[in-house]
Amino acid sequence: MTGISDVAQLAGVSKSTASRALSGSGYVSADTRQRVMDAAERLGYVASPNAASLVTGRTKNIGVMIPFISRWFFGQVLEGVETALRARGYDMTLYNVHPGESSSDVFTYFLARRRFDGIIAIAVEPAESDMALLRKLDKPIVGIGGSIPGVASIAIDDVAIARLATEHLLELGHTNIVHLGGLSSEASDFSVPRNRRAGFLAAVTDAGLPEGRVLESEMSIPGGYEVTANALSDTRNRPTAIFAASDELAIGAIIAARRLGIAVPSRLSVVGIDGHECAEMFSLTTIEQTPREQGEAAVTTLVDAVEADELPVPGVSFHPITLRVRNSTAIAPS
Amino acid sequence: MTGISDVAQLAGVSKSTASRALSGSGYVSADTRQRVMDAAERLGYVASPNAASLVTGRTKNIGVMIPFISRWFFGQVLEGVETALRARGYDMTLYNVHPGESSSDVFTYFLARRRFDGIIAIAVEPAESDMALLRKLDKPIVGIGGSIPGVASIAIDDVAIARLATEHLLELGHTNIVHLGGLSSEASDFSVPRNRRAGFLAAVTDAGLPEGRVLESEMSIPGGYEVTANALSDTRNRPTAIFAASDELAIGAIIAARRLGIAVPSRLSVVGIDGHECAEMFSLTTIEQTPREQGEAAVTTLVDAVEADELPVPGVSFHPITLRVRNSTAIAPS
Repeated sequence: MTGISDVAQLAGVSKSTASRALSGSGYVSADTRQRVMDAAERLGYVASPNAASLVTGRTKNIGVMIPFISRWFFGQVLEGVETALRARGYDMTLYNVHPGESSSDVFTYFLARRRFDGIIAIAVEPAESDMALLRKLDKPIVGIGGSIPGVASIAIDDVAIARLATEHLLELGHTNIVHLGGLSSEASDFSVPRNRRAGFLAAVTDAGLPEGRVLESEMSIPGGYEVTANALSDTRNRPTAIFAASDELAIGAIIAARRLGIAVPSRLSVVGIDGHECAEMFSLTTIEQTPREQGEAAVTTLVDAVEADELPVPGVSFHPITLRVRNSTAIAPS
Repeated sequence: MTGISDVAQLAGVSKSTASRALSGSGYVSADTRQRVMDAAERLGYVASPNAASLVTGRTKNIGVMIPFISRWFFGQVLEGVETALRARGYDMTLYNVHPGESSSDVFTYFLARRRFDGIIAIAVEPAESDMALLRKLDKPIVGIGGSIPGVASIAIDDVAIARLATEHLLELGHTNIVHLGGLSSEASDFSVPRNRRAGFLAAVTDAGLPEGRVLESEMSIPGGYEVTANALSDTRNRPTAIFAASDELAIGAIIAARRLGIAVPSRLSVVGIDGHECAEMFSLTTIEQTPREQGEAAVTTLVDAVEADELPVPGVSFHPITLRVRNSTAIAPS
């Protein structure tokens, strides 16, 4: 059987260089790596990381848990995570933990297999029993979106951002503002919609207005369309402004307003959160965040910890955001 | 150290049942599975699939290659694949092979690790050298979207579908039809945009019209918006109908037409392909396909082959489609 030394000899490198090139761990130039790969292919050699991981205890694999794949924010985070993991020589095992589904089922299943060096939990808050199991295995976890108690997390400051968006509308003179948020059923698992709602309600109350109105919806374009169409068709109490918890909701709101002949922004202002690829097309005022960079930062934090054989320092690292004012917000109609 | 027999004893099941429950292979009732999981957790037992896979040669892991995550079709396929794999007790290792990036790099990297039982390639056509390597490892591969020579693939009949969409417009009396397709740079790697273009051109020629006009764009809503805005602003040769290669392109086209005050469908008909979650909101006539089901079907074909220790029968299995006529298409303006 072909061994690593045959590959090293054919490629003209040392055994340890050949090993690094094939395992993806440690630095090897692209050129050398290619030579080793070619040699391995010519000889029909394939490394056995299963055997290797029994020795080192490392799998060079990271488990990623995510509630949605087909939503803008999550797709972007995932692309950032995948690119960054591959650059560091790690595989990504993806689990789609649907909202409402207990993350414990996935955790138990995943943990029982034990073939991962760490976990990235995107907008998933593991139960305390799962966290206890993770601690027992001594495997690090990094969160993205919201904070998990006792864990390192990458997030944006959802309460402050919701306040910023709401205050933008208040400064334009709006007093009848509606918040489009996620479903309560999802908010219970996931702090992001909960915190955005809290920031909105606090800003409205601080402005001395009656309690803010919150409408729930699935956080998608059709979800935003439907709930806005309903809200706008009630002519007795029609809002002059909408703060949507995501750009997908905000875009749905703008499409609904257009369909009903309600001009944006002269009769209705709309502000979102995200920086969705369609935001510019809709002239959407929004608070831009950078989900790809959040994904990359989570990988750096996690893989650094794995390779140093330490747990990452608990606490939330807030990523910067930008208020991008476009033409979907204007002074409140008199 | 806690062994599988301790877990079996505590759960009150046989050793082989406990093993099935923990590995996810073979049938175990949800109830029994939970009891075994609880027992394993109480005892702090974690299975070592690395050791197991050295014995069986199986990893219960499937590699999935996909060019985009943040596009509707791909997100849907991926959700279908993940759900179906988990139901059969398999993990999914995800590789995002960006268009233009050589799939060989990912293949070599991935194959060198050898920890997979099979591959699902979504809209990725592996090079012949990669296929040779796969054959050498005797690992099955199933394709989704387009066909890979000599491989089992799940697809829709792109040429026939493009013809159907174009003929729908021809029957409505349109003679100045533009096709919005993907970028040639992407089409060279990927047969789907190429085949949709071919079906369009054939239908136009068969109708005795001059050669059809094709506009290239990134296959996204903003891509469709931009290329349509350009095409419509040329008043000397403005099309009366657009056949878009995806619903995202078609939705971008509708938004561009509205912005320019060109009424859909009275002055411009638009037809897409997909059945995107926003299609109904835009009253979009489209050819609906079922990407989740395509993902599930690929898993069934692949995992059945893995478990029977056979290669899947080569050939394309076409999934059904439906022409859904809504209000974005109408008789050509005279």
